[in-house]
Amino acid sequence: MEKTSIVVQGFQFAGITAGIKASAKKDMTLIYSTVPAKVAGTFTTGKVVAAPVVLSRKNISSGLCQAVIVNSGNANACTGKQGLKDAQAMIDETAKLLKISKKQVLVSSTGKIGVLLPMDKITSGIATAVSSLSPNAFHEASEGILTTDLWPKTASAEIVIGKQKITIAGFAKGAGMIEPHMKLQRAGSGLHATMLAYIMTDAAIDQKALEKIFDNTVNQTFNKISVDGDMSTNDTALILANGLAGNKAIKSGSKEAKVFEQALVGVLDELAKLMVKDGEGATKCVRIVVKGAKNDHEAEKMAYTIANSYLVRTSFFGQDPNWGRIMGAIGRAGTTLNPDKVSIHYGDVCVAKNGMTSGEAADAAAKQVMQASSFTVTIDCRLGKGQCAVYSSDLTLDYVKLNSCYRT
Amino acid sequence: MEKTSIVVQGFQFAGITAGIKASAKKDMTLIYSTVPAKVAGTFTTGKVVAAPVVLSRKNISSGLCQAVIVNSGNANACTGKQGLKDAQAMIDETAKLLKISKKQVLVSSTGKIGVLLPMDKITSGIATAVSSLSPNAFHEASEGILTTDLWPKTASAEIVIGKQKITIAGFAKGAGMIEPHMKLQRAGSGLHATMLAYIMTDAAIDQKALEKIFDNTVNQTFNKISVDGDMSTNDTALILANGLAGNKAIKSGSKEAKVFEQALVGVLDELAKLMVKDGEGATKCVRIVVKGAKNDHEAEKMAYTIANSYLVRTSFFGQDPNWGRIMGAIGRAGTTLNPDKVSIHYGDVCVAKNGMTSGEAADAAAKQVMQASSFTVTIDCRLGKGQCAVYSSDLTLDYVKLNSCYRT
Repeated sequence: MEKTSIVVQGFQFAGITAGIKASAKKDMTLIYSTVPAKVAGTFTTGKVVAAPVVLSRKNISSGLCQAVIVNSGNANACTGKQGLKDAQAMIDETAKLLKISKKQVLVSSTGKIGVLLPMDKITSGIATAVSSLSPNAFHEASEGILTTDLWPKTASAEIVIGKQKITIAGFAKGAGMIEPHMKLQRAGSGLHATMLAYIMTDAAIDQKALEKIFDNTVNQTFNKISVDGDMSTNDTALILANGLAGNKAIKSGSKEAKVFEQALVGVLDELAKLMVKDGEGATKCVRIVVKGAKNDHEAEKMAYTIANSYLVRTSFFGQDPNWGRIMGAIGRAGTTLNPDKVSIHYGDVCVAKNGMTSGEAADAAAKQVMQASSFTVTIDCRLGKGQCAVYSSDLTLDYVKLNSCYRT
Repeated sequence: MEKTSIVVQGFQFAGITAGIKASAKKDMTLIYSTVPAKVAGTFTTGKVVAAPVVLSRKNISSGLCQAVIVNSGNANACTGKQGLKDAQAMIDETAKLLKISKKQVLVSSTGKIGVLLPMDKITSGIATAVSSLSPNAFHEASEGILTTDLWPKTASAEIVIGKQKITIAGFAKGAGMIEPHMKLQRAGSGLHATMLAYIMTDAAIDQKALEKIFDNTVNQTFNKISVDGDMSTNDTALILANGLAGNKAIKSGSKEAKVFEQALVGVLDELAKLMVKDGEGATKCVRIVVKGAKNDHEAEKMAYTIANSYLVRTSFFGQDPNWGRIMGAIGRAGTTLNPDKVSIHYGDVCVAKNGMTSGEAADAAAKQVMQASSFTVTIDCRLGKGQCAVYSSDLTLDYVKLNSCYRT
């Protein structure tokens, strides 16, 4: 993991220890832009929504954001009216110390559910964070949002638009409760994750273009990963664009928008893969590609049914090319299917053709493929042109150990 | 587990070792009725259907059955045309040796997917089974259908209709790939499980009544359990009623039908609970009750989302009353919900009220409840009158160990 700092013009960062976690690890992150930034965000689509998500959804409607305050160790979810007051107090304290508008502060929390925030620690933590702000603390900020994650996840890209160099950089957390289905919260309108992701860019971009591009890229990346099919009460992904690169503002549908979107997909895809690789207890990152489905929607249903199957995911852990479990999964996905046409590949190895085994030599070769920490399983239904690719991880002994004692 | 034999008038049983399993454990079961019996069956609703299910669906349309031949160790699924030929050969050989109509023989297989049956062993196994038939081999028959099950599952009931004593007895297998959603295959029309269940009764009953009652009882029992949310290619539940008790045939909608149905629910409910208790690696059988939902359908969606949640099921294993994970699960079930109204009980202990914690003392008391091998978790949404109860198990280290090496 990269230790050299990523710098994005006009952005300052802090990642500090407020004392919320018993472990004394970093548990608070502050992101600050020296000028108000355009903002777009996607939030959990679940019905049980944490207090910070409620308030961030409200504040994002202004379309502008100058600071994001995040704590880990406590999700401030299922905490009722007091939870809302506490989240608002986080916003108010941050705005006061930074001398910025309350409306332009967003807030996130991740960690234990159902426990009130320790507001004394939170308040003093915010003061420490504000006084620690630095353009060079990107890495520290990427650590303050972590819970059961083993390591921070960061990615960045540089592009040139006009003659201006533009930086896009982000950090994210993942680990458990991961199957985001986040929806764009329009400046004035939802995404889902205890995945948190924050993307900063100095690009100048129109609000409408920013929202549309972020929605597209989140759907292609964060919304295509599954660690355990559980969606969180706190899932949030934000992008802040402060315009300080000085480029002519990127318009929706333009050539520049395409260049920006491609770079953003790269950054989000990298963060998404890192989240799967660091999924709780995971030892494998498996790309599941379903093609030849009746349509894309049916391909997606089959891909998620495979990605969430207990039996398929334990077979990944056991490095066992047990394609019969994949057949079982697509058979119950509720889609159009002719089992006698299905072929299944592990990497380049065809283990099943026309719904039947390719024999023991193929099995042995597929076992070799599965020894890698990342590989692709391709299911071709040979019915139509529908396709979908999702990332999943294996279901391991460590996942069960971690989640039978850690209280998320 | 009961070792004294269960006897059902007119039924003979065999459970033998044909050599399909490497372990030399019993791997073939034969059920025979001395007279053709009325039959009803429910089969997997998945799109990938094993060869024996295809043929049994066809043969059951006659409404009569005199024998059921079952092998374990090989599922004869994803085996193409040869698989169908092999399943038909099992029917033909059984009919020939028993001198009965091929149309009145049903066939089931369970075990590895994608491997052709060893027909030499199957054929000689059928001969051994036929020659071993005995009214007193119910227990042996209950063993021949097992795969990763730790022990056979049997249940029985006696009722009196008119002046006649009627026996209802059954055996079943469960363990992995369990979330049956089986549908009745009408005499002339489907259930889903690598759950297999066979119910024998000497009751005289009308075909229509038998079908309706079996469909109802399967929906209340087998279709309300979930071990891992995976549905099998081979799920089958059958009931054979040979009428030898000599009662006046039970008519649909009659008082006698009600008595029969209640007794049948008792037998199937017992088998269902035994399947969950013997779920692969399971240490807990948890009854999940959702009530106060908008309607029964929404209650069912929430109950299954809880029952299939990786995070909820690991918390059961950890004996951790982590109700936040239950809130997260119902929040993503796609149903009507007001989180601020929800209350959650573990046993009699209220851990959350109005969507918020009841405090640490309640948590400690709930931990005590969770130490039992069976307990109930009740979620009250306080919205309407919808309710649903399902049985689930915990997600354990042994589940992962078993399924990362065993090839189902």
